[in-house]
Amino acid sequence: MAIKRRKVSVIGSGFTGATTAIMTAQKELADVVLVDIPDMEGPTKGKALDMLESTPVQGADVNVTGTSDYKDTAGSDVVVITAGIARKPGMSRDDLVNTNAKIMKSVTREIVKHSPECYIIVLTNPADAMTYTVYKESGFPKNRVIGQSGVLDSARFRTFVSQELGYSVEDVQGFVLGGHGDDMVPLIRYSSVGGVPLTSLLSQERIDAIVERTRKGGGEIVSLLGNGSAYYAPGASITQMVEAILKDKKRIIPTIAYLEGEYGYNDLYLGVPTVLGGDGIEKIIELDLTEDEKTAMAKSVESVKAVMEALPAE
Amino acid sequence: MAIKRRKVSVIGSGFTGATTAIMTAQKELADVVLVDIPDMEGPTKGKALDMLESTPVQGADVNVTGTSDYKDTAGSDVVVITAGIARKPGMSRDDLVNTNAKIMKSVTREIVKHSPECYIIVLTNPADAMTYTVYKESGFPKNRVIGQSGVLDSARFRTFVSQELGYSVEDVQGFVLGGHGDDMVPLIRYSSVGGVPLTSLLSQERIDAIVERTRKGGGEIVSLLGNGSAYYAPGASITQMVEAILKDKKRIIPTIAYLEGEYGYNDLYLGVPTVLGGDGIEKIIELDLTEDEKTAMAKSVESVKAVMEALPAE
Amino acid sequence: MAIKRRKVSVIGSGFTGATTAIMTAQKELADVVLVDIPDMEGPTKGKALDMLESTPVQGADVNVTGTSDYKDTAGSDVVVITAGIARKPGMSRDDLVNTNAKIMKSVTREIVKHSPECYIIVLTNPADAMTYTVYKESGFPKNRVIGQSGVLDSARFRTFVSQELGYSVEDVQGFVLGGHGDDMVPLIRYSSVGGVPLTSLLSQERIDAIVERTRKGGGEIVSLLGNGSAYYAPGASITQMVEAILKDKKRIIPTIAYLEGEYGYNDLYLGVPTVLGGDGIEKIIELDLTEDEKTAMAKSVESVKAVMEALPAE
Amino acid sequence: MAIKRRKVSVIGSGFTGATTAIMTAQKELADVVLVDIPDMEGPTKGKALDMLESTPVQGADVNVTGTSDYKDTAGSDVVVITAGIARKPGMSRDDLVNTNAKIMKSVTREIVKHSPECYIIVLTNPADAMTYTVYKESGFPKNRVIGQSGVLDSARFRTFVSQELGYSVEDVQGFVLGGHGDDMVPLIRYSSVGGVPLTSLLSQERIDAIVERTRKGGGEIVSLLGNGSAYYAPGASITQMVEAILKDKKRIIPTIAYLEGEYGYNDLYLGVPTVLGGDGIEKIIELDLTEDEKTAMAKSVESVKAVMEALPAE
Repeated sequence: MAIKRRKVSVIGSGFTGATTAIMTAQKELADVVLVDIPDMEGPTKGKALDMLESTPVQGADVNVTGTSDYKDTAGSDVVVITAGIARKPGMSRDDLVNTNAKIMKSVTREIVKHSPECYIIVLTNPADAMTYTVYKESGFPKNRVIGQSGVLDSARFRTFVSQELGYSVEDVQGFVLGGHGDDMVPLIRYSSVGGVPLTSLLSQERIDAIVERTRKGGGEIVSLLGNGSAYYAPGASITQMVEAILKDKKRIIPTIAYLEGEYGYNDLYLGVPTVLGGDGIEKIIELDLTEDEKTAMAKSVESVKAVMEALPAE
Repeated sequence: MAIKRRKVSVIGSGFTGATTAIMTAQKELADVVLVDIPDMEGPTKGKALDMLESTPVQGADVNVTGTSDYKDTAGSDVVVITAGIARKPGMSRDDLVNTNAKIMKSVTREIVKHSPECYIIVLTNPADAMTYTVYKESGFPKNRVIGQSGVLDSARFRTFVSQELGYSVEDVQGFVLGGHGDDMVPLIRYSSVGGVPLTSLLSQERIDAIVERTRKGGGEIVSLLGNGSAYYAPGASITQMVEAILKDKKRIIPTIAYLEGEYGYNDLYLGVPTVLGGDGIEKIIELDLTEDEKTAMAKSVESVKAVMEALPAE
Repeated sequence: MAIKRRKVSVIGSGFTGATTAIMTAQKELADVVLVDIPDMEGPTKGKALDMLESTPVQGADVNVTGTSDYKDTAGSDVVVITAGIARKPGMSRDDLVNTNAKIMKSVTREIVKHSPECYIIVLTNPADAMTYTVYKESGFPKNRVIGQSGVLDSARFRTFVSQELGYSVEDVQGFVLGGHGDDMVPLIRYSSVGGVPLTSLLSQERIDAIVERTRKGGGEIVSLLGNGSAYYAPGASITQMVEAILKDKKRIIPTIAYLEGEYGYNDLYLGVPTVLGGDGIEKIIELDLTEDEKTAMAKSVESVKAVMEALPAE
Repeated sequence: MAIKRRKVSVIGSGFTGATTAIMTAQKELADVVLVDIPDMEGPTKGKALDMLESTPVQGADVNVTGTSDYKDTAGSDVVVITAGIARKPGMSRDDLVNTNAKIMKSVTREIVKHSPECYIIVLTNPADAMTYTVYKESGFPKNRVIGQSGVLDSARFRTFVSQELGYSVEDVQGFVLGGHGDDMVPLIRYSSVGGVPLTSLLSQERIDAIVERTRKGGGEIVSLLGNGSAYYAPGASITQMVEAILKDKKRIIPTIAYLEGEYGYNDLYLGVPTVLGGDGIEKIIELDLTEDEKTAMAKSVESVKAVMEALPAE
């Protein structure tokens, strides 16, 4: 009956996984288990130990461990999946989808076996299809399988607006639906700064430029880094989702959620505004969309479906 | 050339002043000097010492001192004025205004003498007229004399919306202009939850009820307490303003600002949306108002002017 | 199976209880229920609502409610008892003990009925005897009934050392055993600054003066306030204990713990170093004491026993 | 006269530099400028932008920029140097020292030119000699040139003690003098847990094992990672030093400080306990050492001097 610390497992010890792990630890949200394949056990343990050795100066009483054995994830409250491969030159999209879907299935079986009551957050790309795969494989109710997408896009959008206007990032509200990149559906009508509609603060031209930059936000980082992709903002975004669940904050956050009729779609995972709390996705918020927004969303859905068709048969 | 801690002085050691002091100390924002009249020196020193004795368990390296000597406030970055009397039964409004205006003048002279570069935040009621009085007496530029009003009203509005919907307080945006109470001008058009317009989440009836409760929010607490008025939410609100200035956050916050043509008014202090940063009120944001909102604002201005007429001649 | 917020109930809505409530809420540790007798229901609800209205500016998603009905405390993880009367002029110590013991019994029955699995922290004076009373009445295992004493004394000691040396409060370690005031047993040998023994930083004369000031620390505040006693440092101290339990931090904290042979004593509650974590007092740390320290502790025990004799028969 | 945000520049955008940058930004301590050579400008800008895009979800109003132009560092309050090469197989120690010393000189000239009032923290290895080099090149007073060493070693020591005993990292005090690795001088006498001497909690055998593990702490991470070295705990350690200076915390922290007679040494930089505050190293704390400790320190000094002899002539 003793009060237990929360427990979060992060599958995949790459940059995004590791950043999620350290940020979760820094906030003293939970004990953290960083998991990777046996071949990566050394580096995984090394990163975890390095993180643990930062806890005294951070004043955070949490354990951080690295492992390749899923037994160590037993009883996790939240499991974050960042595992998977990145698309390499010459690799077809279908190959990517196939490979990552297999990884999702294998990882999900292990997660379910050791943490049958957990909430799963999926980051692996393409996130819509991968979240769907995890959902099907897990047999979990839909509220407990959640994809990340919109928090990061919103964060980028908010950053660019803040930079443009010179106002606090805390006061910029951004809002995106649908998928990443070209499939992103920014709801400018619902974007504001300190409550003031964005459209009364910036010209349409500037807004369009910011939307365009947000769409290509991931690519901008990739292009600058030269090698690899973003991980600080992605890690922070996932950590915010983890916190919303562990603290039952009931935050309104855009996540990739399973639709059963909402927005007119069925049996697919799509980026929509949701209430994220102690029971995962506690609600999907349905907004009235304009015809243009509906069209953009339909396009986003087409992209998701196209990817899903590449998923391997069950 | 050594880096110095910021310094905040709080004039008035009553509940609101003391709450502002402890919250500023807890956040490790600045050394805090709590000031009151010589008759109150003992309790002022006692509260300050009690606060200081809480710093080891809070891990906050700040000094907190109590005094009745303004010399101890020398070199403050921000000075918060909470001093003044509350309206007692049988006291006319003019008497209240007169008494508090005299206090403002006396306090302001001391502040200016010892901290000629500081930013002043005024909480004393009636806040619009008192901020005006401090402004005139100080000879400071208008950006450095700021009244508190809308942060608290917004906080109450956001609390009630959060309670009604069951969503995170972090995601509720509220927005009020004008004065307190009946003179408050809530801009429902600019209120949202996670970016979603309030009007699409709540019926007009429920919104009206929440606006009405916000208008009477101060009275609700007074009535429950039986003796005295609110201080936790007011103290937290002022602390947020202090933080916005000390950290140069450039937050969009409704404050009582000096108008020189904005919204069509001149030479008065009124609650409007402002950018609050390292140079105090760095900007007044002018919103397009509907006719109804303009009418409500005009009414609010009338109230402010009526009070200002009761101010003692210079 | 959804993840629930932690829940903390605070019995007694006076200054210390209220300060504990707001600090627990500010840190987003738990939903907070503030409880007082039916006669105080209005002010209790008023304070709680005022606290709740501060949460939007603090970004804390917790509920804060005021009540006189213990049903509202149901399922608390931690319950803090601050209820009780203060000694008034002309009141004998036995009268004080008798009255507060009756309050403890009544309060404990309600707590146990509605939160049979909770951890109880007792602050009511005289804390040793009152914690004992709550322990006996509750029928709880000893690890789940904990008295506050040493955190506050240590905090004062650390404050005075920090002031004397001009070094960070974070780096001062203080350590006290036994009871409050004259019965306090400061272990100077175990006090250090950044690991450096206090005795190599301060003269014995200065250390003695600091010990003496710590002993009389509560009285110093009472004397300054003129009316009432300290509540900021006490509230912060209790909040640290609440946090240690809710986050299972396993902190080494001096608490009033039930002894069964430790330090040579049996069947009494005494201030000793303990490990405070998710299962309450998880361990009592037994230190080797010098003869002088043993003598001081024996004196402290005598005081505790003298008070316990004044407890009403069961 | 407006209040300005603090500014921190981090030279070197590798893992440790980047981790220092993100942690400084997360804590909202200062605007951060990440600097690297022109060849690394893309990745440096990419990392900085990625960090900046995390600020909205962290609620941190700070700017983070990447650059290869030192002009962008102008007016920094603190500059952290992590630049330099790591020792490669086949490289002699003298080659390493020579190369990094040249980098230090070049970097220092740029820092001094653009931020003549700043405080410099040096992490580049070998840290004692590199800090000395920066000191000489800068012409700064000794209090403004500070090396990192002991915070990290202490953090590791504290981690291992916490793991061994199962108690909070917040309550473990560790203390090391001298250099890294074999030259580390652990002061077990000054190590405690919640004030309780370590020697009364752990056997000498276990303490020896922990000391040995701490000595080899950097190597343990290198060996696990397989490629590269620790950066989370190092980054957190530097961030703690940055915070101590920016907030004028006057923390007692082991740093690499310039000795002028302290501990019997002159004209060298050595790891000793210092008071770190708004004026950098405000004081060196001289401890009474045992003969064994003096011998260990002398050995540490010999190592430092041997490295210094390899420094290029001015």
